[in-house]
Amino acid sequence: MNQPDNVTQPAPRIGVFDSGFGGLTVLRALLARMPAAEFFYLGDTARLPYGSKSPATVARYAVESAQMLESCGAEHLVIACNTASALALDAIRAAAHIPVLGVIETGADSAAAASVTRDVLVLATAATVASHAYARACAERGMRALEKACPLLVPLIEEGWTETIGGTDAAAAVTRQVLCIYLEEAFAEAEARACSFDTVLLGCTHYPLLRPLLTRELPQRMTILDSAETTARRVRRDLEANGMLPPIDATNDRVLRCRFFGTDSVEKFRTLGSRFLGQPIDHVDQIDLGG
Amino acid sequence: MNQPDNVTQPAPRIGVFDSGFGGLTVLRALLARMPAAEFFYLGDTARLPYGSKSPATVARYAVESAQMLESCGAEHLVIACNTASALALDAIRAAAHIPVLGVIETGADSAAAASVTRDVLVLATAATVASHAYARACAERGMRALEKACPLLVPLIEEGWTETIGGTDAAAAVTRQVLCIYLEEAFAEAEARACSFDTVLLGCTHYPLLRPLLTRELPQRMTILDSAETTARRVRRDLEANGMLPPIDATNDRVLRCRFFGTDSVEKFRTLGSRFLGQPIDHVDQIDLGG
Repeated sequence: MNQPDNVTQPAPRIGVFDSGFGGLTVLRALLARMPAAEFFYLGDTARLPYGSKSPATVARYAVESAQMLESCGAEHLVIACNTASALALDAIRAAAHIPVLGVIETGADSAAAASVTRDVLVLATAATVASHAYARACAERGMRALEKACPLLVPLIEEGWTETIGGTDAAAAVTRQVLCIYLEEAFAEAEARACSFDTVLLGCTHYPLLRPLLTRELPQRMTILDSAETTARRVRRDLEANGMLPPIDATNDRVLRCRFFGTDSVEKFRTLGSRFLGQPIDHVDQIDLGG
Repeated sequence: MNQPDNVTQPAPRIGVFDSGFGGLTVLRALLARMPAAEFFYLGDTARLPYGSKSPATVARYAVESAQMLESCGAEHLVIACNTASALALDAIRAAAHIPVLGVIETGADSAAAASVTRDVLVLATAATVASHAYARACAERGMRALEKACPLLVPLIEEGWTETIGGTDAAAAVTRQVLCIYLEEAFAEAEARACSFDTVLLGCTHYPLLRPLLTRELPQRMTILDSAETTARRVRRDLEANGMLPPIDATNDRVLRCRFFGTDSVEKFRTLGSRFLGQPIDHVDQIDLGG
């Protein structure tokens, strides 16, 4: 399927889906690696959080969202939502007519490539941990995962109480303290279970915003992997393998080619979303998926 | 309507509604003041949080929930949810055939009775503050409200990182630090606006769990009022005024007379709910309100 460089390549169209804003860190990584692609981002903000909903409900929401992105013309679908990837990937694949990639499998693949000890620490939300989707994905790749729920990190990040996206010093100190409590608990559990992890997998699309803090607080020997980077790398590789990606030097047009859709408050999407994307979001279309 | 003490009084049936678990602090206060009443508690847990939803959606959810409680036989309805009280009280009253009481009006009434300076500090969630429902209710009663959004307190309370309901010392220190940041910001804003509040109104049904901490961190001269206590007092007074409450000494049966309903995970309701109620919740019926 590889095409010669001199044929004008149509921009691949990629749909990115999350229950909210976290998936914008995945989109940010995708935009950096594929400036010539065209993106459609859907945040199902009226029905978030998915984490507290039943698997059947999450599957129904995720399938509706996937179909909406496919109807926009997406040729590839990235499920940039850990809960939906954990609970609904099979249902989405069954309903979709295009390739579907979830953040959990890409994260586990990267951990498998990075870990020497075969022990991985996964930081995630309570819902993702309860699903044990990372433990299963790691086990399938010959690794052991210690899954640590860090439920307060998402609200702290959404409030902007981190060093990278502003907030007062006192507020950033709170986030550091909370992270240290979680890490201490994780290391204590690792010791009790004789785990010797060398890789930390950020199993929540919000957590890339804590990367600078994590880099400081974790021992230097640890490899930190985040869903955003691992997923973006994988999407690029898949598209390249299918000859669907214009060579990066052929893309002079670096204008942000993305349409944003949300199911609730457009204002909040623009304000909060811009922080996750790392650039302003000027326009969001509000759509109704029911429910 | 007052009846003599020797007539056997049927137990009044009271419906209590919240989007989640916070309303259980109101139920707890009601149970303490009306041990002979019969209660129905509904937490619309599958559709929480209401705070991020549009007013029309909140009104639809709240009306469905109110109707469900009325169909159980509730003769009085307590909207133990600040968002629903702020956005949907009129819609609920229009749809219900029984008296309906919201936490915002009872809180504002109590503040009006307590405040000498007529300046009140209201601590609440971002959604409640954005609705300015407390500012309006206070203005109608000749007071000025400084509304301070404290979005991280609910997740900290739900995680149990408070002194009164367990958690490690380091975790409780985080909650204290977060509260102090919010209070410092509120006092700075008060100074800028020349407010001299003498009353602090807890405008979120989660916050009664922080009362011991607030009592320590606020200046002694401040009166702290919480929605749970103020609402329970008001319900008792209303029922007494209508001769509907058996005298307290006639109630030997102190068995918990409450049925619990939730729209999602019964297990989480029992675990988390017991903390808010202050006693074990043995059984929760899961019901489907759609959506």
